[in-house]
Amino acid sequence: VKGRKTDLSEAPCAASRALQIFGDWWSLLIVRDALMGVQRFGEFQKSIGLAKNILSTRLKKLVENGILTTAPDEDGRHKYVLTEKGQSLAGVILAIWQWGEDHCFAPGELGVTLVDRRTTKAFAKMQMRTSEGRAVDAKDLRFGFVAKPARRRSARNSRTSRPHR
Amino acid sequence: VKGRKTDLSEAPCAASRALQIFGDWWSLLIVRDALMGVQRFGEFQKSIGLAKNILSTRLKKLVENGILTTAPDEDGRHKYVLTEKGQSLAGVILAIWQWGEDHCFAPGELGVTLVDRRTTKAFAKMQMRTSEGRAVDAKDLRFGFVAKPARRRSARNSRTSRPHR
Repeated sequence: VKGRKTDLSEAPCAASRALQIFGDWWSLLIVRDALMGVQRFGEFQKSIGLAKNILSTRLKKLVENGILTTAPDEDGRHKYVLTEKGQSLAGVILAIWQWGEDHCFAPGELGVTLVDRRTTKAFAKMQMRTSEGRAVDAKDLRFGFVAKPARRRSARNSRTSRPHR
Repeated sequence: VKGRKTDLSEAPCAASRALQIFGDWWSLLIVRDALMGVQRFGEFQKSIGLAKNILSTRLKKLVENGILTTAPDEDGRHKYVLTEKGQSLAGVILAIWQWGEDHCFAPGELGVTLVDRRTTKAFAKMQMRTSEGRAVDAKDLRFGFVAKPARRRSARNSRTSRPHR
C-alpha cells in the first residue's frame, strides 16, 4: 500500500504519531496479548496466527519504539515484556474492545471480553470527560494547539485550526 | 502484507473485530477528520495526504461498515457524514491521541490537541474503571467469556481463557 510509506512521526497530531508506531493493527493485537501475559514468540504466533516473518518484524518495531522490551527467560531464550509505555496502551485497547463489543457482535453472541482481575466483572464504559469531570461526546471535540506535555497555552498558539496531519 | 488477508470478523475478541474494520490506521485518521467536521473527498485528501485511490477505498469500506454515510451536499456532490456508530469512535481516537501526546512528543513540543468545544481546555485523561468506578490499570485486566451485548454470565462460559483471536 503506497500510503503507508508516508512519515507521520513528525505530524502535529498525536493520534497520527501514535498510529505511525503501530503501523497496522497486528501490532495492537500483539500488545493485547502481552497485556494478557503472553511473552514468547511461539505463543504470540499461536494466538494471533501471523506468519513468522511478519510477527518478527512487528515485535522488532514494538521493541524499537519502547513498547516491548526483551529479557532472558528461564530457558535461556528471550521473552517479550511490556514497558510502562506499552502498559499505558491498555486504555486504548479497552476503548477499541468496548467499541467492538457494541458494534461487531450479534445480540447474545458469545465473545471474549476484558474483565477486572479481582471481581471478574466487565469494566465500566470508557468515558470522555472534561478536566472538570463533565461527560462529553463526539460533538464536544475540536482541535486546538498546545505545547506538550505541559499543556501550556500562549496567545500565539491558542487557536482552532483546520485538520492537520 | 500477507497477514492482512486473515479474516478476524468472526473472532471472539472484540478488539480483533473492531480492528478488522479499520484495516489500517488511515481509516482512523479519516474518522478523526470526520469528527472535526471534514465531509468532502478533497478535504480528506488534503488533510491526510493519501493517494486518491487509497482514500477512495478506505472511505468506501467505512461506508460499507456503517461508520460513515453519504449524503448529497449543496453542490449536488456527495459528502461523508459520521453515523452514530462512527461518532462512538471518538473515545478510541481520544485514547490514542492522549497516548500519543504522552509518548510521541518532546517536552514542550507544539502539537495539535483535542479540546472541549465549550471551554477550549484539554480533556481529562481517559481512565479505565471497574463497574463500581474504581480506577484500574493494565495489571487489572484479564480475559473472560461473556455473551454480548447483554453481558450475561453462565457457569459454562464463565471462565478465564488463553488469548484468542
